[in-house]
Amino acid sequence: MAKAPARKTSKTTRVAILGFGTVGSSVAQLLRAQRFAGIELTHIYNRGVERKRTGATAKGLGAGIVWTEDINDVLRSKVDVIIETIGGIDPIEGWLKAALKSGKHVVTANKQLIAYKGAELARLARANNRVLVYNAAVAGGVPVIPATLHGLQGDRITRLSGILNGTCNFMLSHMEHGAEYADVLKQAQAAGYAEADPSADVDGYDARAKLCILVRAAMQTGISPDDVPAQTIRTIAAIDFQYAKELGCTVRQIACAELRDNVIHARVGPMLVPKSSPIAWSHGTQNMVVTSGRYGGDVVFSGHGAGGNPTAVAIVSDLLSVVHGATAVALPVRRRAVTGEFVAPHYLRFIVRDKPGIVSAISGALTKVGANIDSILQRPGYPKDALPFVVTTEPCRTSTVEKAVRLISKMDTMLEKPLCLQMLTDED
Amino acid sequence: MAKAPARKTSKTTRVAILGFGTVGSSVAQLLRAQRFAGIELTHIYNRGVERKRTGATAKGLGAGIVWTEDINDVLRSKVDVIIETIGGIDPIEGWLKAALKSGKHVVTANKQLIAYKGAELARLARANNRVLVYNAAVAGGVPVIPATLHGLQGDRITRLSGILNGTCNFMLSHMEHGAEYADVLKQAQAAGYAEADPSADVDGYDARAKLCILVRAAMQTGISPDDVPAQTIRTIAAIDFQYAKELGCTVRQIACAELRDNVIHARVGPMLVPKSSPIAWSHGTQNMVVTSGRYGGDVVFSGHGAGGNPTAVAIVSDLLSVVHGATAVALPVRRRAVTGEFVAPHYLRFIVRDKPGIVSAISGALTKVGANIDSILQRPGYPKDALPFVVTTEPCRTSTVEKAVRLISKMDTMLEKPLCLQMLTDED
Repeated sequence: MAKAPARKTSKTTRVAILGFGTVGSSVAQLLRAQRFAGIELTHIYNRGVERKRTGATAKGLGAGIVWTEDINDVLRSKVDVIIETIGGIDPIEGWLKAALKSGKHVVTANKQLIAYKGAELARLARANNRVLVYNAAVAGGVPVIPATLHGLQGDRITRLSGILNGTCNFMLSHMEHGAEYADVLKQAQAAGYAEADPSADVDGYDARAKLCILVRAAMQTGISPDDVPAQTIRTIAAIDFQYAKELGCTVRQIACAELRDNVIHARVGPMLVPKSSPIAWSHGTQNMVVTSGRYGGDVVFSGHGAGGNPTAVAIVSDLLSVVHGATAVALPVRRRAVTGEFVAPHYLRFIVRDKPGIVSAISGALTKVGANIDSILQRPGYPKDALPFVVTTEPCRTSTVEKAVRLISKMDTMLEKPLCLQMLTDED
Repeated sequence: MAKAPARKTSKTTRVAILGFGTVGSSVAQLLRAQRFAGIELTHIYNRGVERKRTGATAKGLGAGIVWTEDINDVLRSKVDVIIETIGGIDPIEGWLKAALKSGKHVVTANKQLIAYKGAELARLARANNRVLVYNAAVAGGVPVIPATLHGLQGDRITRLSGILNGTCNFMLSHMEHGAEYADVLKQAQAAGYAEADPSADVDGYDARAKLCILVRAAMQTGISPDDVPAQTIRTIAAIDFQYAKELGCTVRQIACAELRDNVIHARVGPMLVPKSSPIAWSHGTQNMVVTSGRYGGDVVFSGHGAGGNPTAVAIVSDLLSVVHGATAVALPVRRRAVTGEFVAPHYLRFIVRDKPGIVSAISGALTKVGANIDSILQRPGYPKDALPFVVTTEPCRTSTVEKAVRLISKMDTMLEKPLCLQMLTDED
């Protein structure tokens, strides 16, 4: 057992912020507004820092702060804690390693860095008797990582599912009311939720990195984002929400992981979610996570997953943990096999040039691979030469239904590649 | 800033469990099932311990465990951590003080003890360089305390509201379907959710203690349960659910606290909850807490609030925190005034002997105190000599509406004391 650590002393903690964009400036302003005892913001690093120093987001910050665009001004300084809000792996990885080696604690919101390099950075932190904290990297203002690390370690978490990307949730919850993908993307970009290149959000790379961090915290298993299949939401159309509604569902970008027979099953992508499920409660940019434990059952966490202030709350809470003497806990981390395979019902949406025998050909392909049809839905009012219709399957393996999709894609009546979505059930 | 603490060493942590009822035995069995490295259960204390040692809940526990009914066997032993699952203040307060003084860490699920004596015990723990952890005392398996302590300290929490008593939630969510109070109480007793004397649950004392612990963690303010008004749910009838439904609401036992103008407004009791509010999502014995922060907005936590296994998860997670070197954080705790006053719409239900002029007399009383009527509801089909009907008010102070209730109570047509419930709104 660890020796009980020394208590908080009255020494001031000097803090540097790397990156003065939405999150970095929100952290600085939150520190200014809350005036926590014993914390002093001493350095702010940003490229082209002069523009930042004289901008509106710097208003009211102390005159004593060193504003710099030379990272060495921070790394060679006597700051105690570095808060990193820039994102990305290169050059941040090198900077934070240098920071840990020179005796600085690190607080970061960098999901890609932690997902890919978290284990290595944690080892380096421990070796240097420093703390690395990254609660802001997952679900922003929703404290699911600290809750998991401090409140659920006694359980055996067997399933995680959730909405980890606010941009996709904003887009899909707007599409629920009839809008098409291209229009909601423009809306999301205009509102500042989506980047000019929306790939990280809509193609699932952002949610996937967060899922890997969650799996590590909740299932004590190190997995790489590269091992987790990510399906884009670009192929979702307004018609899918109409069919989903007929099935008592909606469509959301879901990140999920299951621990079954000592294998991690993990996947990110648009899925059908029952309206009765807590996961369907999330609207707009909200995030939500449901953890399922063998002993404690389901726990639901929900709130603002992104934005300057909610993320700043997570970062400043991490900073306070460090100031109050948080320890670099060495989580037991297991190696386990990872697969994208789930056993679940699936939703298949086809756009076809209608002619007799299509349903029989599709059901033939499904039978051939061993998947059973649960329902066939065809809404009226669509043209025969571009007819959308939907087949849902009984629970079957992802690879089985994908085999059927490959067979069906080859049929000459198919106007586009069939859309295949996993369906969550009320038990999920 | 605290010195970075020493890392975990390989020494075994010896653990004692006080109390071998539902929770204590679940802790022992969870430790057995999960086999966490470096933890050894060495002592179990219970009155009449022989009955426990040979009972079904002791099955499979190690032969090396000392079973005792003499508390001194534990207090004088070399155990490192005491887990207390007995509850109540006397004699537990003295035992845990002795434990802390003799160098033992304490993990407890004892809400009354922590609500009334938590600050004193925390000081004693710090003075002895020991850790006192009590995440299981609020919301059982829902890690709202660790999430608040480790993930929301950077925010300024201005409002807490939630369902903190699973027994009342079980009873009220069953009454929603038409049952009367006396019947659901019997059901809850048969299911083991309610005690023979249900007062602690139904009269709000349990939820009130938990609310005080939450206020301390989230609003850094020490308040006494005795300063928080608790209203019983015994006066809720099936008819109230019918009227609530007409208002788009249901009825739940709510614990809520607001920080406004540096005063804590706190209250526990049955309230009307909009069906659209996350708080209405909770069914059965579930617990739910919504925290509202000035910077991070609303965060929702939900899950199993009670029961052996969920509570054991919280306790064992606390134990693991201690083993991993958790620190005794000295939370800044402010003194603030406490009041039971809220400004809210209210629901008033009357049972009257019908005669002309009643509505005008009631509205006259409300006008006299300065409360405005928002709606009057009278369902058909009730006898004239015991007629239930409802008036809702526009937002007004609790004391104002209580003054009106006192005036109205004196009217000779009133067959019983009017029921007055605070109404939560969508903004709450």
